[in-house]
Amino acid sequence: MPIDFAATKALFDLPEGVIYLDGNSLGPMVKTAPARMTQALHEWQDLLIRGWNKAGWMAQPAQIGDRIAKLIGAPAGTVVLGDTLSIKVYQALASALEMNPKRRVILSDTGNFPSDLYMAEGLCRTLGGQYRLKTVAPEEVMSAIDDSVAVTLITEVDYRTGRRHDMTDITKRAHEMGALTVWDLAHSAGAIPVNLTAAKADFAVGCTYKYLNSGPGGPAFIYVAPRHAEVACPALSGWLGHESPFDFDLGYRPGRGIERMRVGTPPVLQIAALDAALDVWEGVDLAEVHRQSLRLQDQFIKGLETRAPMLQLNTPRSHLMRGSQVSYRHPEGYAIMQAIIAEGVIGDFRAPDNLRFGFTPLYIDEDDVARAVSVIGKIMEYGSWDKPEFKQRSRVT
Amino acid sequence: MPIDFAATKALFDLPEGVIYLDGNSLGPMVKTAPARMTQALHEWQDLLIRGWNKAGWMAQPAQIGDRIAKLIGAPAGTVVLGDTLSIKVYQALASALEMNPKRRVILSDTGNFPSDLYMAEGLCRTLGGQYRLKTVAPEEVMSAIDDSVAVTLITEVDYRTGRRHDMTDITKRAHEMGALTVWDLAHSAGAIPVNLTAAKADFAVGCTYKYLNSGPGGPAFIYVAPRHAEVACPALSGWLGHESPFDFDLGYRPGRGIERMRVGTPPVLQIAALDAALDVWEGVDLAEVHRQSLRLQDQFIKGLETRAPMLQLNTPRSHLMRGSQVSYRHPEGYAIMQAIIAEGVIGDFRAPDNLRFGFTPLYIDEDDVARAVSVIGKIMEYGSWDKPEFKQRSRVT
Repeated sequence: MPIDFAATKALFDLPEGVIYLDGNSLGPMVKTAPARMTQALHEWQDLLIRGWNKAGWMAQPAQIGDRIAKLIGAPAGTVVLGDTLSIKVYQALASALEMNPKRRVILSDTGNFPSDLYMAEGLCRTLGGQYRLKTVAPEEVMSAIDDSVAVTLITEVDYRTGRRHDMTDITKRAHEMGALTVWDLAHSAGAIPVNLTAAKADFAVGCTYKYLNSGPGGPAFIYVAPRHAEVACPALSGWLGHESPFDFDLGYRPGRGIERMRVGTPPVLQIAALDAALDVWEGVDLAEVHRQSLRLQDQFIKGLETRAPMLQLNTPRSHLMRGSQVSYRHPEGYAIMQAIIAEGVIGDFRAPDNLRFGFTPLYIDEDDVARAVSVIGKIMEYGSWDKPEFKQRSRVT
Repeated sequence: MPIDFAATKALFDLPEGVIYLDGNSLGPMVKTAPARMTQALHEWQDLLIRGWNKAGWMAQPAQIGDRIAKLIGAPAGTVVLGDTLSIKVYQALASALEMNPKRRVILSDTGNFPSDLYMAEGLCRTLGGQYRLKTVAPEEVMSAIDDSVAVTLITEVDYRTGRRHDMTDITKRAHEMGALTVWDLAHSAGAIPVNLTAAKADFAVGCTYKYLNSGPGGPAFIYVAPRHAEVACPALSGWLGHESPFDFDLGYRPGRGIERMRVGTPPVLQIAALDAALDVWEGVDLAEVHRQSLRLQDQFIKGLETRAPMLQLNTPRSHLMRGSQVSYRHPEGYAIMQAIIAEGVIGDFRAPDNLRFGFTPLYIDEDDVARAVSVIGKIMEYGSWDKPEFKQRSRVT
């Protein structure tokens, strides 16, 4: 049955007068989130410490991990929630390096999200001088996978350009060359169809506050392929990843399978918001979501080609190489984005000169796109971004 | 002005019919938490991505870190929120080891919380064979600090026995021997007067969901002494610890001072609950809180000496060596605790045989203690814990 996108849109509590093209940065709230949060607060108030058992808090990182697993082509019991994406990157990389002990190179690309690179850098520094992070241009990843590479660290969809890597091809090439793969799904989970099993991915990590709408600071997740789950030994060996945390042993013994990737106490309140948000995804086919996103993107690109030809498209035209966002370059991108936001169309700016627009069909429709094109067209046509108030930089966008 | 403990108790939303002696594990909810959470959800709903600036989310880890700093004798700008306590232990240890590069030993004690030991173990494994974690009995810590020790990792108050280490003496000894110190304040922050500055502590870490009442899974915090803040280089080098995160540079440059200890996106919803909880602490003198806790502990100990002599006190009698909890040993401790909880007095059990009771004067008073003594006394007198339903183990307590 095709998705009723009008019905899914009605599940979100979108602010009046806003067209939100930034779900690729922070997803909006579902209408059921406040009630689910009230329930979690009530569990805390009433059950107190007993909530860990009676309200099932302790089991949620694995249970809700299973809900996410369905969206990324992973079997139950292979995904667990916790920490932030940066921490999960470190955890996956450290395990992968340990599993490939003769090699010293982490391969990534210059389009990767900086925090992934920084965490890899920090891990290399911790491991000592022999280890290094090698970064190449996105289009050179395939050819750069040689027999020095221990693990590839690739974000499937580029946070800036929206360019999509081929997970299956890169993973295949990595395996042929004896490397493992860590896939960052920050811009994939809930945006495009992902099949970690079919792609034979080794590790994957992702966040939930973008396309999965868990709210600001929602927990990250990590996937470990079943074939590695009893082999990977976490460097971040926290007590909730212990085989038997409540024995309070002095020595660490990794827990069963994906459970060992847990570290500390799970963020129960953030998880409540995530749990509510995931209801929207029940029975939703990601392939259809992505097809609709591509339709919206094409409508937007075509509209701006006419209305704002001075914006330079920074996203591949091929549908096969696109995620769920469209990016443009302009030397005055910062001011232009501020002017667009002031008119109620919310995208974001990424240094040095990128304007990003996300197309999330669960709550963005053709009318929204038409209005966004009209707003942006007018701003570019009249040059109304060229004002001091739009040029003044704030710390974050 | 002395603390009006009746007034502080009225600030908490305690469940009917329960005497809660487990604030050392998970603190109760303050009455203002739901409204503060509703506000945070509204910010998300209405501001969406703009919340990072307009609602001040991005600044909260440092701003609310400053609120915690006041409670632990630390200057403003030395404490930042984020992650879980286990992650913060790893972060502090990795920095300390790097700052003491000629040494290879992390010294801890067998009374430390296992996750601290596990994280140290994982870090040593990551760093390679030369590094090792050495654990000694709590009373042997002072004599075990020799010139092989790079860093001590001590939890000030023992999670099981409530035994308190002397932070000033141990730090002094460590410095004399050329070692750095990492103090875990899990059972200190909000429980006893802590003065990190006076003790000359190097690093400290702690959690907020115990005595600081932030709710299940509330964020941890880390302190770095000002003299180290520009030296310590985080192994977990995430983008929000970068000097200029929104430049999206490909290379990591540590941020200013404590900011570099940030890693990923802060958990805004958990932080909202913490922020509400910290209001209770405004103007509260921790020395007075601890004195009152000791009074309640003494009342409890004296009561059980008469009513339940078969419970073996596992907490030092000296006030100088006590935190904010009292612990007893009994071979049937698990079943006894279940029987106590069934009567509405909530403590907890820690393997193998410890019954723990926390005394948190902000919401526990003399009447509560008297009733708890009476309940426990009856259960022990009649042996009513000796029933199958109390002996059946659940996964978590």
